[in-house]
Amino acid sequence: MPRLTLDISMSLDGFIAGPNQTLEQPLGEGGDRLHEWVFGLASWRKPHGLSGGETNADNEIVAEFIRATGAVVMGRRMFSGGDGPWKDDPNADGWWGDDPPFHVPVFVLTHHARETVTKQGGTSYTFVTDGIEAALEQARAAAGDKNVAVAGGATVVQQCLKAGLLDELQIHLAPVLLGDGVSLFDRLGADAPELEAGRVVASPSVTHLRFGVAKGASAP
Amino acid sequence: MPRLTLDISMSLDGFIAGPNQTLEQPLGEGGDRLHEWVFGLASWRKPHGLSGGETNADNEIVAEFIRATGAVVMGRRMFSGGDGPWKDDPNADGWWGDDPPFHVPVFVLTHHARETVTKQGGTSYTFVTDGIEAALEQARAAAGDKNVAVAGGATVVQQCLKAGLLDELQIHLAPVLLGDGVSLFDRLGADAPELEAGRVVASPSVTHLRFGVAKGASAP
Repeated sequence: MPRLTLDISMSLDGFIAGPNQTLEQPLGEGGDRLHEWVFGLASWRKPHGLSGGETNADNEIVAEFIRATGAVVMGRRMFSGGDGPWKDDPNADGWWGDDPPFHVPVFVLTHHARETVTKQGGTSYTFVTDGIEAALEQARAAAGDKNVAVAGGATVVQQCLKAGLLDELQIHLAPVLLGDGVSLFDRLGADAPELEAGRVVASPSVTHLRFGVAKGASAP
Repeated sequence: MPRLTLDISMSLDGFIAGPNQTLEQPLGEGGDRLHEWVFGLASWRKPHGLSGGETNADNEIVAEFIRATGAVVMGRRMFSGGDGPWKDDPNADGWWGDDPPFHVPVFVLTHHARETVTKQGGTSYTFVTDGIEAALEQARAAAGDKNVAVAGGATVVQQCLKAGLLDELQIHLAPVLLGDGVSLFDRLGADAPELEAGRVVASPSVTHLRFGVAKGASAP
């Protein structure tokens, strides 16, 4: 069965986005600093329709993730652009453009049923109104023998963590203290799953920490 | 001038101790898990009066810290044993025993003036009642050409971070989600200092991440 993975950039003080997310700053104040390591990489630029880029160890980490991912699950706000002008338009899909960077089927958690939208380059958006586990089931069917990646935002990620749904977690730890923002783990309390330490790859701009996630009592 | 360093074990979700610290569990519930990597190391066992132990890469990290440290600064609760029976006894010094593991001069931040206490093996306790910067000044004088290490607890550590006093930070990141406890960084807000990524050493049980800390506007 496809594994459920989370690959996410985090500051040393545990934030995955800065405070005050807006349309102009979808990652919040300072949030771009968490992702600086990725923007120049060939493996990130290519799915975004950009040529060139660096081909270092960080590049291989991203390429590996892309190769392994067969479907994506995301929350509605990440899909439609956070608190932007589309916030209250359930039919909005403008955020990621006509040629989105995913290039695989994307399953969007929402309360608003609508038809599947097919975009260029292999991306489709399927809207799932009956919860995370239903979305995962559809995503697993679409992923074939590849992984299903949770893309975000924080609410969906924490839901997966707390429900013991994740199989694998890879933190891209940025050497930054944001001071405030959206916390990845917050205080999970007794829902915090057990981790198994995996591969560590360090570059001058980021440290990639991989963990296996033990299935909790509440896992399906 | 001696550099001010912080070497501290932290969970992936940012805790340096678990919740509900007591005399029996000075590191809080689950807090021992942050330090499991250290207890078996020869370089940790020796200053604690124990023989033997492992001599792996983690051992060298601890040995390096001990060699580099000429004086220690700590808070009164760490000195006297947290919320134990000594909590309300300003003259208590029972927590670390007659042969404490520090083996250098220790400067204790307190509101209660008392005479310096000299223990076995090179440890002395000097009580400083006029604040962190006065304690650092005395510790720097005692450290010679070595570093001054902030030992904890969290209050003193955050005070140093917020005031831009630290020169160097080394996080020993344990592959553990504690779920709750004492947060190292909490939300530092605008006081969050800039970091400079340094050496990363990964072992199966812990990842050592070193950072330079830029001096903030509020630094002396």
